[in-house]
Amino acid sequence: MSAFQDHYPENLSHCYGCGSHNAHGHQIKTHWDGDETVTHYQPQPFHTAIPGFVYGGLIASLIDCHSTGTAAAAMYRQEGREMDSLPAFRFVTGSLHVDYLKPTPLAGPLELRGRVTEIKGRKVVVESEVIAGGVVTARGVVVAVQMPEGFGSSGA
Amino acid sequence: MSAFQDHYPENLSHCYGCGSHNAHGHQIKTHWDGDETVTHYQPQPFHTAIPGFVYGGLIASLIDCHSTGTAAAAMYRQEGREMDSLPAFRFVTGSLHVDYLKPTPLAGPLELRGRVTEIKGRKVVVESEVIAGGVVTARGVVVAVQMPEGFGSSGA
Repeated sequence: MSAFQDHYPENLSHCYGCGSHNAHGHQIKTHWDGDETVTHYQPQPFHTAIPGFVYGGLIASLIDCHSTGTAAAAMYRQEGREMDSLPAFRFVTGSLHVDYLKPTPLAGPLELRGRVTEIKGRKVVVESEVIAGGVVTARGVVVAVQMPEGFGSSGA
Repeated sequence: MSAFQDHYPENLSHCYGCGSHNAHGHQIKTHWDGDETVTHYQPQPFHTAIPGFVYGGLIASLIDCHSTGTAAAAMYRQEGREMDSLPAFRFVTGSLHVDYLKPTPLAGPLELRGRVTEIKGRKVVVESEVIAGGVVTARGVVVAVQMPEGFGSSGA
């Protein structure tokens, strides 16, 4: 089964969090599971906060890229289009909020599950949970916005 | 000049974001500058979102560790104590919020500047800006809480 990220256009495939062309990065893969989106990720031993637990920045990074991927997939789904059809929907993060509920164990795989709570115009809001060993350890909300044409080229 | 992180106890020195013992991590260093705290960080070429710009997860990570360091330093300062005095103040992130205002260029160094906006009981709120080439590209708010005794040992 192909993941959302497998259909990203070339210039989005270098992201440290989700780009399949970034050899140093996390290369997360996200899929639909009914109306939810799912990412599985195995932290590395050095992704530590205090020994044995995941550092908060990794959790924020996973929520971020999981959510922008979910936003793009939701927009395609709303329009009844395949993710490799053109024009491409590309999303950036407007804001990211994470509530850290419990320490997240480093040993096992993490599951992220996301739901779209708002999709309107160029904006998609995604709420996600980070689950470790069946326990929700963090919750995130991302406001994703469609990338403007020329994003980055003018610094605006 | 020593940084806040140089005084962290051994079990906090393995953090990917700020631990001086994490060879893979960012090893950020934070200092006071009057009533503000400052961290400088040079992103690596692979910390990319789209080519030429920093991925959001790195910005969230830097804000996170910059803020927990600021929280600890502020608590010591409030009590008129040196950061290497005991008992150690250790903070974890309760919540993290980031507003991404503009694309953050990858080429140059980043500056984070933080201010304590609330310090009460076991909680410290830190607001930070991420500045690239003199331009504020992101703003963050972290609610940091003193680490409970036995943090992580019971998963609570």
